Amino acid sequence: MTHRLKIVPRYAETDMMSVIHHSVFFIWAESARVDLIDQSEITYADIEKSGLLLPVIECNFRYINLVFFGTPVFVDCTISKFNTRQLEFEYTIHQDTRYCAKGWSKHLFVNAESKKSVRIPEPWLKILQSKVIK
Amino acid sequence: MTHRLKIVPRYAETDMMSVIHHSVFFIWAESARVDLIDQSEITYADIEKSGLLLPVIECNFRYINLVFFGTPVFVDCTISKFNTRQLEFEYTIHQDTRYCAKGWSKHLFVNAESKKSVRIPEPWLKILQSKVIK
Amino acid sequence: MTHRLKIVPRYAETDMMSVIHHSVFFIWAESARVDLIDQSEITYADIEKSGLLLPVIECNFRYINLVFFGTPVFVDCTISKFNTRQLEFEYTIHQDTRYCAKGWSKHLFVNAESKKSVRIPEPWLKILQSKVIK
Amino acid sequence: MTHRLKIVPRYAETDMMSVIHHSVFFIWAESARVDLIDQSEITYADIEKSGLLLPVIECNFRYINLVFFGTPVFVDCTISKFNTRQLEFEYTIHQDTRYCAKGWSKHLFVNAESKKSVRIPEPWLKILQSKVIK
Repeated sequence: MTHRLKIVPRYAETDMMSVIHHSVFFIWAESARVDLIDQSEITYADIEKSGLLLPVIECNFRYINLVFFGTPVFVDCTISKFNTRQLEFEYTIHQDTRYCAKGWSKHLFVNAESKKSVRIPEPWLKILQSKVIK
Repeated sequence: MTHRLKIVPRYAETDMMSVIHHSVFFIWAESARVDLIDQSEITYADIEKSGLLLPVIECNFRYINLVFFGTPVFVDCTISKFNTRQLEFEYTIHQDTRYCAKGWSKHLFVNAESKKSVRIPEPWLKILQSKVIK
Repeated sequence: MTHRLKIVPRYAETDMMSVIHHSVFFIWAESARVDLIDQSEITYADIEKSGLLLPVIECNFRYINLVFFGTPVFVDCTISKFNTRQLEFEYTIHQDTRYCAKGWSKHLFVNAESKKSVRIPEPWLKILQSKVIK
Repeated sequence: MTHRLKIVPRYAETDMMSVIHHSVFFIWAESARVDLIDQSEITYADIEKSGLLLPVIECNFRYINLVFFGTPVFVDCTISKFNTRQLEFEYTIHQDTRYCAKGWSKHLFVNAESKKSVRIPEPWLKILQSKVIK
């Protein structure tokens, strides 16, 4: 299942090259994966409240076309891999008809207190599985 | 006492007007007040670890000259007012010989757990007082 | 006329106080005023393309209640004052039923090349006037 | 040659996990590579003024240990590869004795006006070469 999030580029996100700064794509990707989870029975905020964190352990973006202020972008996000301890998302970003960027991020399930890697609790597992299959 | 912090403007902090974005000045001001406190016997991180927070309750910047990428800025920071419950900082920002901006921020002493306003504990009071007088 | 923009707080916008960082409100305010203009016959991007800039010359936020991750906020934006050389916006921010912050920003019409203050061109004047009256 | 930049983590750069947000590492990496270039006969600002841009075409970070507010980090930066059209940097980030993150970025030499890929001009070539060899 691919989840699409529409984002309006912010003036503050531009840089003196008159394009959106490359670091912003990681923040947009985060918004997209949070939104993907929020569309299910639970929200990302719920997951954190339950004592589970999903820190990024690696992330990557490849920039194909420049992104400009003044036109919305679409961030498509998919859960590309997951097992009981890790989760991986893929992203593509479009603006108008231009394919602008492609990225991915790897996440670990971590206990909020101990900050140690844990197995994903059963209820979150089912919800995330349904997101992969659909 | 005026505390001076040198900051190198970051490329990511520029916008498509080819200047530093106005919101960045609030982050630079924060760095300057944290650095002012860190130069005393305690650090700002210590204050938070002790269960005290200093959230901003109001802040303001006036922009006089544009700030550019490629040259360091100097943020001058002073504790302009404080009593047992509140604290106020003033800032001026220079780049080369240009006077670029002037700002201030008001802070409340807050208990980290209850998020309620508290009187500043005696040890922090003395340290901050010494910063005002000097 | 009050323009309302819905914004979903981003995880990256939180800080270690577990609330939205105070500097973010200035970026949300910018999104709201750009959106207010974009709802008219022209867009903010058009204004810049025509060689006119609207830099912030002063801005202010007062923080009344903390803003959290996990729930959308609403930024209400009004043009509170304007003449042929300056423009002023006011903002209020709500989250759920909580009134969280109140701010304003002053802007100058500036020629993009000379970076000098100019009178607002007639077409933009009419469009902005209609925004004030309505 | 490895260039080391000391950076003081900013409060605004923390998130509600009480650590530095993963997107910030890309901004720190940018500061380090700009600083590496600025230590030579030219500055990164000079390169842009000459009409040459170095946009990021791909970047990556792997997070090994969490980075906290309250202690400086050291960003080590190396030019790992370069030819007449592309440039690659590698980064490692330490805090205290902890090895925290490892990243890289690829850049294209681009003409500022046409936004098209160009060969690096002779003078910049020599300067960057000296950075690789040393």
